[in-house]
Amino acid sequence: MAEHLSQSELVYPFKLLDYLNGFRVSKVTFSNCELGVFDPLLKSQEPLSAQHVARELSTSVDGMERLLDALVGMEILEVETTDEAALYSSTDVTNLYLAQGSVKSLHNMIIYQSQTIYPLWNNLADAVREGKNQNEKTFGLPPESVFQALYRSEEEMLKFMGLMNSSWILDGHDITTAFNLSCFQTIVDLGGCTGALAQEMVKVYPSSSVTVFDLPQVVEAAQKHFSQENDGVVFHTGDFFSSELPAADLYILARIIHDWSEEKCLTLLKKIYDICKPGGGILLVEAMLFENRRGPVMAQIFSLNMLVQMEGRERPPSEYTHMLNKAGFQNIQVCRTGKTYDAILAIR
Amino acid sequence: MAEHLSQSELVYPFKLLDYLNGFRVSKVTFSNCELGVFDPLLKSQEPLSAQHVARELSTSVDGMERLLDALVGMEILEVETTDEAALYSSTDVTNLYLAQGSVKSLHNMIIYQSQTIYPLWNNLADAVREGKNQNEKTFGLPPESVFQALYRSEEEMLKFMGLMNSSWILDGHDITTAFNLSCFQTIVDLGGCTGALAQEMVKVYPSSSVTVFDLPQVVEAAQKHFSQENDGVVFHTGDFFSSELPAADLYILARIIHDWSEEKCLTLLKKIYDICKPGGGILLVEAMLFENRRGPVMAQIFSLNMLVQMEGRERPPSEYTHMLNKAGFQNIQVCRTGKTYDAILAIR
Repeated sequence: MAEHLSQSELVYPFKLLDYLNGFRVSKVTFSNCELGVFDPLLKSQEPLSAQHVARELSTSVDGMERLLDALVGMEILEVETTDEAALYSSTDVTNLYLAQGSVKSLHNMIIYQSQTIYPLWNNLADAVREGKNQNEKTFGLPPESVFQALYRSEEEMLKFMGLMNSSWILDGHDITTAFNLSCFQTIVDLGGCTGALAQEMVKVYPSSSVTVFDLPQVVEAAQKHFSQENDGVVFHTGDFFSSELPAADLYILARIIHDWSEEKCLTLLKKIYDICKPGGGILLVEAMLFENRRGPVMAQIFSLNMLVQMEGRERPPSEYTHMLNKAGFQNIQVCRTGKTYDAILAIR
Repeated sequence: MAEHLSQSELVYPFKLLDYLNGFRVSKVTFSNCELGVFDPLLKSQEPLSAQHVARELSTSVDGMERLLDALVGMEILEVETTDEAALYSSTDVTNLYLAQGSVKSLHNMIIYQSQTIYPLWNNLADAVREGKNQNEKTFGLPPESVFQALYRSEEEMLKFMGLMNSSWILDGHDITTAFNLSCFQTIVDLGGCTGALAQEMVKVYPSSSVTVFDLPQVVEAAQKHFSQENDGVVFHTGDFFSSELPAADLYILARIIHDWSEEKCLTLLKKIYDICKPGGGILLVEAMLFENRRGPVMAQIFSLNMLVQMEGRERPPSEYTHMLNKAGFQNIQVCRTGKTYDAILAIR
């Protein structure tokens, strides 16, 4: 028998109510990042009152107090109460992921989700009805040019790049170590954006040379805002659909295939196969669906995100294998990381 | 030491990522109700394909398939897969709470959350900054007249009434049985909206007479759309701030105090105290905060909802007791139900 919500939900639907309340839990987290609440708490050597945080961030005291209390309830902050006052402090977890300056900060991911994805998802029902993205209804942008929509302004492009950067800071290590890639001397990350995944590659495979290949405006912004001196990553500008690709032993497509229709994916995979040397490889990185359609729920929800925002979808391993075979690749291995993103390695 | 997110989050922040993803989980649930997915599944004697559901509801097949799969991942639906097809079916829990026609349907609550609360919460950071509701920024409505905003059209008023109705169908029984109220012969539910809580009162205390007191347009809509013949509930029109209140042994204020400033609450509580006979009572129903500020997280989030939409707040029992004492009430008992709403009974 299939699993489903526990029968105790018939008495009172606690989990269902959590689902209905999820958007508010998200927005509590998002608003804290947007207002910059975590930073004064992190900088301070002692717990702070709501009045103190409100003054430092120029917000209302009443609103700040309610926000801080909700974060305590969500176990993101700690509070000590006395008869006179409530004093709030941050935790190791929040200092690591939510403070803007921390090495594993999810700040950029959160800003993008709050300001771009949240309004897009207000039109999810229409996306399902129409079977297409909601860039036009949400932002007045043409549905057929998804990257023109994503990169509609430098500000919006930087937010998207921030999202990708946060994401690989979090998941990059699991991806780069999913397979032993040390046999590949030259690695090109196609659509490698800020270079965050490439930097992880350099750390794990220091004897390989790693190149990020992306659109000129992306490469310019990556070098200006995201890359660090001596991080060992080289940038190369171009459009992977229309430009000639640089020679390499391994091509990475990390969250690229999920953006596009099967037809465009096959075109790209064949193009890579054609310039790949025998023994050369391709590494696909995606949130992979289970074959039995029962999860992972995050990948299923990402697939709806692709519907709302792009023209692609998430897929189970069998569909990637099918496309890779069709493009000519034979030796295919799948690695589920147990985290958000998984990897498939195929060899020519 | 204060509780906070588990240290294992330092390795990988699964719970934090769930928080960030909460808005998408909500919208998956909401969109299913908006599209009416549960109803064909409930009516059908056998599991249905995505194609079948899409055809019946005039949606894209691709979008419907992704939506159904996400609901399977969330354990709201079940799926059986064969080599050829995936067939979806509903569960007892979803039939009870999510199908539009069911006795405990949360459909109306979900529509209101999706269409009114979700866009309001897009402006949570501004609500915290400014310390006031976001009706103007979200809907172009004046921030000072919160019920004019709630009832800005008949359609919007009916949606709000649907929310309240769903809510008392779910929580009414726990509230009416929180205390033994059989000693009160006449009960008036001030701002009793559709009468759903009053109907629960009639069921539990059949020898009491129960009256719903609300604004004329609300009473008209309640009688037309929500009340049932012979449900034993009487309606009485008026404005509890400006009209004379009918005589009663017990006055109920269910989710009324949380809408208003302390000053307006005290005015209302004193007005009730003044017409209350000795031995008469007042029952407050609210989602009550813990005194130590550590939860319940749902009540803390509701308090932010009051900031975003209204002019009130959620409070801990001590604040209700303080206000009731100030109004003149003495004998005060608090009952936490362990569900969403709690109750306080005070006697003159």
